[in-house]
Amino acid sequence: MDIRQQALELHRAHKGKLTIESKVPLRNRQDLTLAYTPGVAEPCKEIHRDPEMVYEYTSKGNTVAIVTDGSAVLGLGNIGPQAALPVMEGKAVLFKAFAGVDGVPLCLASQDVDSIVQAIELVAPSFGGINLEDIAAPRCFEIETRLRQRLSIPIMHDDQHGTAIVVLAAVKNALQLTDRQMATTRIVINGAGAAGIAIAKLLLSAGCRDIVLCDRYGILNSEGENQNWAQTEMARSTNPRQMRGTLADALRGADVFIGVSAGGVVTAEMVAAMNERSVVLAMANPIPEIWPEEAARGGAFIIGTGRSDFPNQINNVLAFPGVFRGALDAKATEINEAMKLAAADAIAAVAQADGLRPDYIIPDVFDQRVVPSVAEAVAQVAREQGLVRQA
Amino acid sequence: MDIRQQALELHRAHKGKLTIESKVPLRNRQDLTLAYTPGVAEPCKEIHRDPEMVYEYTSKGNTVAIVTDGSAVLGLGNIGPQAALPVMEGKAVLFKAFAGVDGVPLCLASQDVDSIVQAIELVAPSFGGINLEDIAAPRCFEIETRLRQRLSIPIMHDDQHGTAIVVLAAVKNALQLTDRQMATTRIVINGAGAAGIAIAKLLLSAGCRDIVLCDRYGILNSEGENQNWAQTEMARSTNPRQMRGTLADALRGADVFIGVSAGGVVTAEMVAAMNERSVVLAMANPIPEIWPEEAARGGAFIIGTGRSDFPNQINNVLAFPGVFRGALDAKATEINEAMKLAAADAIAAVAQADGLRPDYIIPDVFDQRVVPSVAEAVAQVAREQGLVRQA
Repeated sequence: MDIRQQALELHRAHKGKLTIESKVPLRNRQDLTLAYTPGVAEPCKEIHRDPEMVYEYTSKGNTVAIVTDGSAVLGLGNIGPQAALPVMEGKAVLFKAFAGVDGVPLCLASQDVDSIVQAIELVAPSFGGINLEDIAAPRCFEIETRLRQRLSIPIMHDDQHGTAIVVLAAVKNALQLTDRQMATTRIVINGAGAAGIAIAKLLLSAGCRDIVLCDRYGILNSEGENQNWAQTEMARSTNPRQMRGTLADALRGADVFIGVSAGGVVTAEMVAAMNERSVVLAMANPIPEIWPEEAARGGAFIIGTGRSDFPNQINNVLAFPGVFRGALDAKATEINEAMKLAAADAIAAVAQADGLRPDYIIPDVFDQRVVPSVAEAVAQVAREQGLVRQA
Repeated sequence: MDIRQQALELHRAHKGKLTIESKVPLRNRQDLTLAYTPGVAEPCKEIHRDPEMVYEYTSKGNTVAIVTDGSAVLGLGNIGPQAALPVMEGKAVLFKAFAGVDGVPLCLASQDVDSIVQAIELVAPSFGGINLEDIAAPRCFEIETRLRQRLSIPIMHDDQHGTAIVVLAAVKNALQLTDRQMATTRIVINGAGAAGIAIAKLLLSAGCRDIVLCDRYGILNSEGENQNWAQTEMARSTNPRQMRGTLADALRGADVFIGVSAGGVVTAEMVAAMNERSVVLAMANPIPEIWPEEAARGGAFIIGTGRSDFPNQINNVLAFPGVFRGALDAKATEINEAMKLAAADAIAAVAQADGLRPDYIIPDVFDQRVVPSVAEAVAQVAREQGLVRQA
């Protein structure tokens, strides 16, 4: 049976992947009296008296809404909220398996920024955090920014920041292994959607200074031709050497390629034109921007993809479970840039502890050290910066 | 340890009552490939091709949102969405224990009708049904009506209809036991909020013709003094003998008292003024409108309360689990009046099968025949009326 059939069977077998279970017994009248009326009135009254008690008496503090509008689902594009539900359920499965977080899929029947923001604000009392998922750029930037201004719980658009954190971890270790410095390394990112822009921003925060962002029209330009506002904004804060031209032009002499774009857009020749000991992170899924063997033929020294069947899998499951685990544990009021940088450091450190190699710059997704390590790093920043709810 | 302490302990022990678990394994790379990327794209594509497939490949079809604005929580009143969360989690616990339904608490940070309706419409793609809970009247009527117009999934405000269904079942059996007819029985309902109004409406649908509704100001009047629009509307479709006055006036010569109001508002003398072989369903919680021993002293023949420590417990857990189970099983597009009537008949029939007695007009809440019986009755109406989604 091929993967397609197996995946359909798995999803059909139990009609979906999630079940909501009780943590308390309900066998008899006494149980009913405590878990429901009249006993349930007691925690209600306590929370009414002190709203912070909602974290003691309910599951809110461990529950994250996984919210999408279905506008940018995997590589499938704008398939809508219902067709996105299997992905959101999958995300909830990962949240539980990797970090013990309870994830609730919320697929929204609107792709309007105001409506999405309002709906999330309205449901927020039930949730300890909000994971935005598979929302198209540039709408996703505005949604996240507005929610962060209005809500005091951890909020993260995983396609942006989960990806950016793991890429930063990989880049850090690749630079360490090739003896390069953040500030002077020439980095080219292909793909200027949610992930590409978030990667560029986080690399800037981490000290990178020479980043060139490309999309299907080539290097982003500061004049805004064929670009959305977010791309133009990024064009202005990157590309210090004011390059123009194609991806191939950008790659000439570059140290690092980061692909979050489409299969097959990079050739061995383009890699060969890069600097020596080049780093190629070709993360398009399922077909990478360039297959590892081709990249190697072009002389790449370190090669990563998004796939599990090659070394150096850059997968955001290394980031989001630990980031939310840490933010929830610390009762953080937000997920900010410092926490993301700390998360990337924590991921990178796990691989460093084993000794870096060209085929090992990032830990395995099932490495059990990653989540606790990321969680602790995030929680520590939250506490140090005082971005935690007061009891 | 008293109930208060026990209830707080129970809620604190696991930080709330709900956990979201995976129905599929996630032990290794292969599992990840099927439950998440790239395998998860397959059910997404199937659903994109045929939206009905969302019921085959996701948990939507078994998942009900339990939505509140926290405006009328238990007897606690308007304590807000966060303080209402323990009740919504409790409801989810009951949904799972009694009917295998997955319940997701959604506590909304608004008490504005438009905002609530819009939020529920937006999250609807994730859910197979909507259970409205603890929303104050008369707002609850408008919210439910508008949602039913706009969404093609089962929607029910349980405080209204769950209660009404169980009361109708009890009234049916009480009338059978006392050899009365629906059309000629004089019924007084005290309490004209969500429950009282819904009970009156369902009794009318079931054939009752002499219903008098009272609230704290006495018998509802058709002029709308001290009343909201829903109460005035009900005053005009009930009270055929155009009575005016107090609850005591209404009860004089009445056959059935139905209390969904406040503790202690009925005296033994008021019961004594009722017709012979009177029926007293005093459901205020935790203190009934009149204690059973007092009602007996007033000559009541059949006595029910909302409490588990007296005979004839009128509790909507007899209704909502089976109603939603049946609606979901049949893929019903709504929950309508005929389904509610069928649910009441099914509940009544379970007690009838055992033989009715004055202290047994309604089955025990843990009677395992109830949910399947209610579910089948509701599903059958849905099918007969063609109110089911077509595959």
